[in-house]
Amino acid sequence: MVSTQIELVSEQRCFGGWQRRYRHQSQVLDCEMIFAIFLPPQAAEQPVPVLWWLSGLTCNDENFVTKAGAQRLAARLGMAIVCPDTSPRGTDFPGEHDSYDFGSGAGFYVNALEAPWHAHYRMYDYVTDELPQLVRAHLPVSDQEAISGHSMGGHGALVCALRQPGRYASVSAFAPIVNPSDCPWGEKAFSGYLGDDRSAWAAYDTCALIERGDSRQPLFVDQGLADNFLDSQLRPERLRAVCERHQHPLELRLHDGYDHSYFFIATFIDDHLRYHAKHLGLIPDLES
Amino acid sequence: MVSTQIELVSEQRCFGGWQRRYRHQSQVLDCEMIFAIFLPPQAAEQPVPVLWWLSGLTCNDENFVTKAGAQRLAARLGMAIVCPDTSPRGTDFPGEHDSYDFGSGAGFYVNALEAPWHAHYRMYDYVTDELPQLVRAHLPVSDQEAISGHSMGGHGALVCALRQPGRYASVSAFAPIVNPSDCPWGEKAFSGYLGDDRSAWAAYDTCALIERGDSRQPLFVDQGLADNFLDSQLRPERLRAVCERHQHPLELRLHDGYDHSYFFIATFIDDHLRYHAKHLGLIPDLES
Repeated sequence: MVSTQIELVSEQRCFGGWQRRYRHQSQVLDCEMIFAIFLPPQAAEQPVPVLWWLSGLTCNDENFVTKAGAQRLAARLGMAIVCPDTSPRGTDFPGEHDSYDFGSGAGFYVNALEAPWHAHYRMYDYVTDELPQLVRAHLPVSDQEAISGHSMGGHGALVCALRQPGRYASVSAFAPIVNPSDCPWGEKAFSGYLGDDRSAWAAYDTCALIERGDSRQPLFVDQGLADNFLDSQLRPERLRAVCERHQHPLELRLHDGYDHSYFFIATFIDDHLRYHAKHLGLIPDLES
Repeated sequence: MVSTQIELVSEQRCFGGWQRRYRHQSQVLDCEMIFAIFLPPQAAEQPVPVLWWLSGLTCNDENFVTKAGAQRLAARLGMAIVCPDTSPRGTDFPGEHDSYDFGSGAGFYVNALEAPWHAHYRMYDYVTDELPQLVRAHLPVSDQEAISGHSMGGHGALVCALRQPGRYASVSAFAPIVNPSDCPWGEKAFSGYLGDDRSAWAAYDTCALIERGDSRQPLFVDQGLADNFLDSQLRPERLRAVCERHQHPLELRLHDGYDHSYFFIATFIDDHLRYHAKHLGLIPDLES
């Protein structure tokens, strides 16, 4: 049962629908949180499927909303898009705000095991359990879900889908961190949140989850080849290799010249929305 | 002759084209300036027509680029979009940075007459003369031009077009300040930049320019009816009245529920791009 209320922070008309921000008290994170939701015009008539968008390092609920240009097609497809924040807010642990890749803005969509983080940093439960319940209780979205994200959020989207076979109609990612157990961003985050016992890390590592083989969910991934983090952090060839080894369905598109920015996301977001619309059973948008 | 060089600040692939920022020394403004340009894929083959986008109060060259979502359709139409900054930068006159609606970020696209502003604040000449010459000298754009903008920039676009009959293939605006001589934003800016002699103000006032009747250029204007500045600053009914009185062609669309934000611009920018494409002789984009 969801007892928490949500409070409207702002609302703006957008492509015939509504772009809103809501504030609520998160029980899982034990702090006040804000999330964004785009409701397409169709939501005025009946509950609509929802795409969860998980953002990357340093982001909050607003980056995708203002920069990706996703509302245009989502309005035509009849798809809601929910953008959670990327970490708990309002806490002030020592060092929490010191670096862009750990602490605030960098929750990595894990349930932390280490003190002091475990008291608040439970973003996996927040985005897969508490927030979906809250959104469905208060807003006109159905229980049909898809999930996507960028970079740290691409990692989050892939992990959420692979850990819950059958839950999401589809999953996609832009420039995801596919093997956080073995890259600088992931090793810093996982050792901080999960501790030094690397056996706990596999539950949040896309490559390890595919290795484990619990899910056969197809993965749709876009990656820019001019991405500054390609070789140091992202390593899409590892995803390709593990998927080939386990015959896990993967569509990995590599794009010459595109970087890690929202210009890359904006360029290809419509392909992702159409992919999710197809799997959510929405009427395909034949134009554009 | 344009002797000034331009220096590439950043470049990102976007919808098959290139989103770039350039730095240059402005002779007209006597300071270093940055502008943004989107070059569509077609610009790799031949010079393309250019849409000038003039932004509103507090903006710089980046707001439209990151928030409007215009590159998608511009890439298909084969249209470059240049976004100048909204005021000189790097000067530090007393009070220049104290308010959001005067001084830096608020050049109002006029050539200032009053000291100390007249030494730098010559944004009309910058956006209509120096910058177009510079862009054409260094980048693959043709001499076919259209112009648009938002709020203060909508005012700027309308004024630039009405003062130069025949120059721009088309002009449009989002929530423009149509009568700056008689609204708080305009009176503050014009008295500061142009002085107390209101006869100098008419040259930069859309309603007054239509009254004068030098141009018959049709105006295409979108205005949201939930715009916080509708009654205090924008007053589209004045534009309608003067256009009716002088039989000046105007398409004024009023949109229920839309506000002054980039969500409003993003929703309707494609209509403006198609309007300009038609007048620029570009092949109409039949889909989407």
